[in-house]
Amino acid sequence: MAKDHFRLFARGDRGAERAGGLVTPHGAVLTPVFAPVGSQATVKTLVPGEIKDAGFNLVLANTYHLYLRPGVELVSELGGLHRFMAWDGAILTDSGGYQLFSLSPLCRVTDEGVTFRSHIDGSEHFMTPELAVKYQEALGADIIMVLDICTAPDASPAALAQAVAQTHRWARRCRQAHRRSDQALYGIVQGGTSPELRRQSAAYLTGLEFDGYAIGGLSVGEPKELMLSTLDITVPLLPEDRPRYLMGVGSPEDIVEAVARGIDIFDSALPTRVARNGALFTWQGRRNIRNAAFRKMERPVVDGCQCSTCRTFSAAYLHHLFRAEELLAYRLATVHNLSFIGELMARVRAHILEGNFRDFRREFMASYLTTDETTRVSQKQKWLDSRHTGAGGR
Amino acid sequence: MAKDHFRLFARGDRGAERAGGLVTPHGAVLTPVFAPVGSQATVKTLVPGEIKDAGFNLVLANTYHLYLRPGVELVSELGGLHRFMAWDGAILTDSGGYQLFSLSPLCRVTDEGVTFRSHIDGSEHFMTPELAVKYQEALGADIIMVLDICTAPDASPAALAQAVAQTHRWARRCRQAHRRSDQALYGIVQGGTSPELRRQSAAYLTGLEFDGYAIGGLSVGEPKELMLSTLDITVPLLPEDRPRYLMGVGSPEDIVEAVARGIDIFDSALPTRVARNGALFTWQGRRNIRNAAFRKMERPVVDGCQCSTCRTFSAAYLHHLFRAEELLAYRLATVHNLSFIGELMARVRAHILEGNFRDFRREFMASYLTTDETTRVSQKQKWLDSRHTGAGGR
Repeated sequence: MAKDHFRLFARGDRGAERAGGLVTPHGAVLTPVFAPVGSQATVKTLVPGEIKDAGFNLVLANTYHLYLRPGVELVSELGGLHRFMAWDGAILTDSGGYQLFSLSPLCRVTDEGVTFRSHIDGSEHFMTPELAVKYQEALGADIIMVLDICTAPDASPAALAQAVAQTHRWARRCRQAHRRSDQALYGIVQGGTSPELRRQSAAYLTGLEFDGYAIGGLSVGEPKELMLSTLDITVPLLPEDRPRYLMGVGSPEDIVEAVARGIDIFDSALPTRVARNGALFTWQGRRNIRNAAFRKMERPVVDGCQCSTCRTFSAAYLHHLFRAEELLAYRLATVHNLSFIGELMARVRAHILEGNFRDFRREFMASYLTTDETTRVSQKQKWLDSRHTGAGGR
Repeated sequence: MAKDHFRLFARGDRGAERAGGLVTPHGAVLTPVFAPVGSQATVKTLVPGEIKDAGFNLVLANTYHLYLRPGVELVSELGGLHRFMAWDGAILTDSGGYQLFSLSPLCRVTDEGVTFRSHIDGSEHFMTPELAVKYQEALGADIIMVLDICTAPDASPAALAQAVAQTHRWARRCRQAHRRSDQALYGIVQGGTSPELRRQSAAYLTGLEFDGYAIGGLSVGEPKELMLSTLDITVPLLPEDRPRYLMGVGSPEDIVEAVARGIDIFDSALPTRVARNGALFTWQGRRNIRNAAFRKMERPVVDGCQCSTCRTFSAAYLHHLFRAEELLAYRLATVHNLSFIGELMARVRAHILEGNFRDFRREFMASYLTTDETTRVSQKQKWLDSRHTGAGGR
């Protein structure tokens, strides 16, 4: 167990929102917090200073990716993940559970572990709960995750129940295998959108006493309402004095709604991924910078935005770079979207501490036009499909 | 004519090298100088501050590219090229002559001008010397170029002579059409590797009194020895009090050898292009960062290099980013290669001013292992071929 990993500063009077802080060997992290995703030890297109400037002191890296390339042993020999990627803030590593099931072209589960194939070269590998912990200890992240099984939203009730039971046995083994007391180890509550399984899973995992609790298996294609109702059921079952981490969630509207339900930590590739597709966040919703409306716009994408992209370049210039498929486009859009999320999280924290998060949430949700359900699901599916090609670039 | 555009500070005692400065509306530019290439109003992957940090106060943009996309009128409406790309240093625009002949899938020359097709959408366009000047005046660069014809190295003597004659007539028309006295206009000496045509061209163009003189039609596939011997013949025919610009040259060894022959200005996409292929400059020659030798290298690519890439990241991390095809790889390598050329130019200038450029040149050429002729020519050809696909990205 990591000592004093989480502190709670404030709680909503009439809501479940809360403000606090994670204490890590690489500095404090104020919550609610969003962790930009750097699966391959790089938040795509950015250097560490830019991630800090956007308001972040926590990033996520992925054990699955780093195990396959460049290899856990190599990163460890070179002084660990912080030094390797030159990031002196906190790091959270995912165990690779989710990637094993979503990226690997083959995946065979036994009680002992998972046999899988590399999406890069097809080579066969074997992962166990003990190895997942060992690898994450060697990478040296500040927060590490248990190995879990993430089922598809259309899994049968029987398959789902079986996966949850397996996740529980693995969680116990991860807990037993964990040695480094400077690292926080989080359990992952699974159970899809089944209230009964979520209850079972929360009960089992809280009994094992983890440093924090993640909610996995959401934002994987289910309707938004089901995600939120599952949070309504699950969060109250988690201990007040431990951080709660909603895995894979990162759209502005989902973050605000999940904070309202008591979530402290988020991670998602969405802000950086949609940036590279030209979708830029504004306080009124996403805008596609490729649209003709931006061709002659001398103003920045978001008036008053303090990110280096908006302070330096016109929307017309960004439009030009995207049309010309210039590499700088992806970088400038990434800076903007992450800065937007950084600013959103700062506002969320400030409003919780000031006791007026309810007003903020109402105003934000009224002005922020969300991407409609159909578009959202089809885009996500397109992305999930594309990942199997194994391209590491865009 | 731009007044007092060039000042000469120092000349070699026993060699042709010289140190000086260009005076432009956007600051002074010390020579010998290298201009990073930003054809589409972006030096690929970098923001303006990084170009400055690498030691540059002059960049090259391309009229051909900007005319086709986003359009000269648009850039002009948005306040000109400096403001569009947020670059407050000096800009040199090429007229587009070279690109018309190398990029356009169709190119028909009459005395009046060139009919060509866009490499982007195949649309047909017409360019004249007068339009080339008009567009460059509208873009607002500090230094602009006449419209010229750049022939292939295997052109017949008759075709070459005809192209040179046409270039001369167009140069005269450009000179007459030029209105903005705050912009310097350079003539371009052509003539391939024919001493006689180079003599004719230098004589004709110097008679027209340009603010500076470029040498075009070199570094287009001819052997290095022929390039250097052509410089030996051509440079002495140009006036001492005007800057001399060798177009399209940018390998470290070519720069040093051309400086020794009296060249003041260089531009080339080579340092940034090879960076994106993983070829990084060191004082001993180019190194391919993808090579296994770098897999575990904890040191930076170049020990003691002051660029932000080498100060921050290990060679092993760069190796990983290239292997994983991460976008950050191209950016970090570009920063390094441009910083290397920036440092090379600073050393060249310092040694000329100190009167010991000969020693520097000898030592540099002895330790810098040049890419062998065969590799060089085949790489260049591959690149020239690939440009016809019209991809603006990598």
